[in-house]
Amino acid sequence: MTGTLVILRHGQSTWNLENLFTGWHDVPLTEQGRGEAAAAGVTMRQAGLRFDVAHTSVLTRAVHTCNLALDEMGQMWLPVQRHWRLNERHYGALQGLDKKATTERHGAEQTKLWRRSYDVPPPPVAVDSPEHPAQDRRYRLLAPDVLPASECLKDVVARVLPYWHDVVAPQLLGGQDVLIVAHGNSLRALVMHLEHVSETDIAELNIPTGAPRRYTFDAALTPTSAEYLGDAEAVAAAAAAVAAQAGGSPG
Amino acid sequence: MTGTLVILRHGQSTWNLENLFTGWHDVPLTEQGRGEAAAAGVTMRQAGLRFDVAHTSVLTRAVHTCNLALDEMGQMWLPVQRHWRLNERHYGALQGLDKKATTERHGAEQTKLWRRSYDVPPPPVAVDSPEHPAQDRRYRLLAPDVLPASECLKDVVARVLPYWHDVVAPQLLGGQDVLIVAHGNSLRALVMHLEHVSETDIAELNIPTGAPRRYTFDAALTPTSAEYLGDAEAVAAAAAAVAAQAGGSPG
Repeated sequence: MTGTLVILRHGQSTWNLENLFTGWHDVPLTEQGRGEAAAAGVTMRQAGLRFDVAHTSVLTRAVHTCNLALDEMGQMWLPVQRHWRLNERHYGALQGLDKKATTERHGAEQTKLWRRSYDVPPPPVAVDSPEHPAQDRRYRLLAPDVLPASECLKDVVARVLPYWHDVVAPQLLGGQDVLIVAHGNSLRALVMHLEHVSETDIAELNIPTGAPRRYTFDAALTPTSAEYLGDAEAVAAAAAAVAAQAGGSPG
Repeated sequence: MTGTLVILRHGQSTWNLENLFTGWHDVPLTEQGRGEAAAAGVTMRQAGLRFDVAHTSVLTRAVHTCNLALDEMGQMWLPVQRHWRLNERHYGALQGLDKKATTERHGAEQTKLWRRSYDVPPPPVAVDSPEHPAQDRRYRLLAPDVLPASECLKDVVARVLPYWHDVVAPQLLGGQDVLIVAHGNSLRALVMHLEHVSETDIAELNIPTGAPRRYTFDAALTPTSAEYLGDAEAVAAAAAAVAAQAGGSPG
């Protein structure tokens, strides 16, 4: 029997709160974000979910979210695999900039293009910038040409899917129940693949923070069900809040 | 160049506080225990340690200690491998019993034998006892005949060393810096091997909680140095506190 998948987007980080483009910049959760993570754990526990393995990005806000949720579920002992391919979209030269100020400076149209278009990446950072992954020890074992200096959603899809196909899919096909804790855009990339969302429609697809989304699959790994767990109204409100945030793109 | 190893024993758990034999029973850290873990992280950060990989047992108190310490070090992104072979000694039928009451009931001599002898395990638990690992989902993929119903230190040495030889040693020989967060007895087993402590002398060897112990090695993985990091007096006091606790054995 094919395993069950749950995807979970981390909650509020300090840079979300300050309305800065975050991307690969490693910031912690706020107290609200920690609360969202714990609440997601409670929701999953109440749904009777028991995982065999969990995956996170290598960004602290996803790692913490995973830890807090698993702690609520009494499943701290689970194997957890962390991988850069689950990271948030690299926001290039926008990382660390104020979202509102960026809109004022570059115009709403250009900013929306950077945030919402499928294949237009923001300007890249230089390789010696502290925002370039080449300057971060956690990526020291990766070939330089795989490290992004900026990414559009299309780039994120291209680097998330190898992890899905090579790591997660075999676990599900082997009958394991899997939790993935990641980010707005790496999860949008995954949902796009799983639910056959078009390059046009993905612009309007918002994944709420802290709301576990459960998938079941047939033997060919085609989803047979997909639903957010927990209170439906709260989930809808969370998705609307994401959409309303200065143009709607997770960042 | 051979990597550096740091071993760290978790701090106070709720059953340590209540003076109960713990073993494989999964109890959380107390606030004091969480503080010990964070302090160990600060000590390691101040020592300039940067790891490539971390290992813990599958018991929550070790997982939490590892998380809290790595968080203080800004290294939440590290790969962490959890394994049952790093678990505390299984205390058999003593798990959950009060240490003082056990001494009163069975006598100081018998209790000391169970706690301190190298090769006398406590009475086993039945396979249908909630204290038997066969009843715990985290061990569901292990062959029944590898699951202990009780262990003496000799048993712990026998099951820790395969993990050392097959997983940790190759990482160190490959130049990786490794953190192991585990328990009084699984770490005593490892120290016994690394430092050639005799079956007699190991009875008097106490590993303080929350005190990182750093090893460097030559190319044959023979230790070239071994030292506790942090304030020497505080470490000595912690080890003495362990030794003074109703006969001295970690449990």
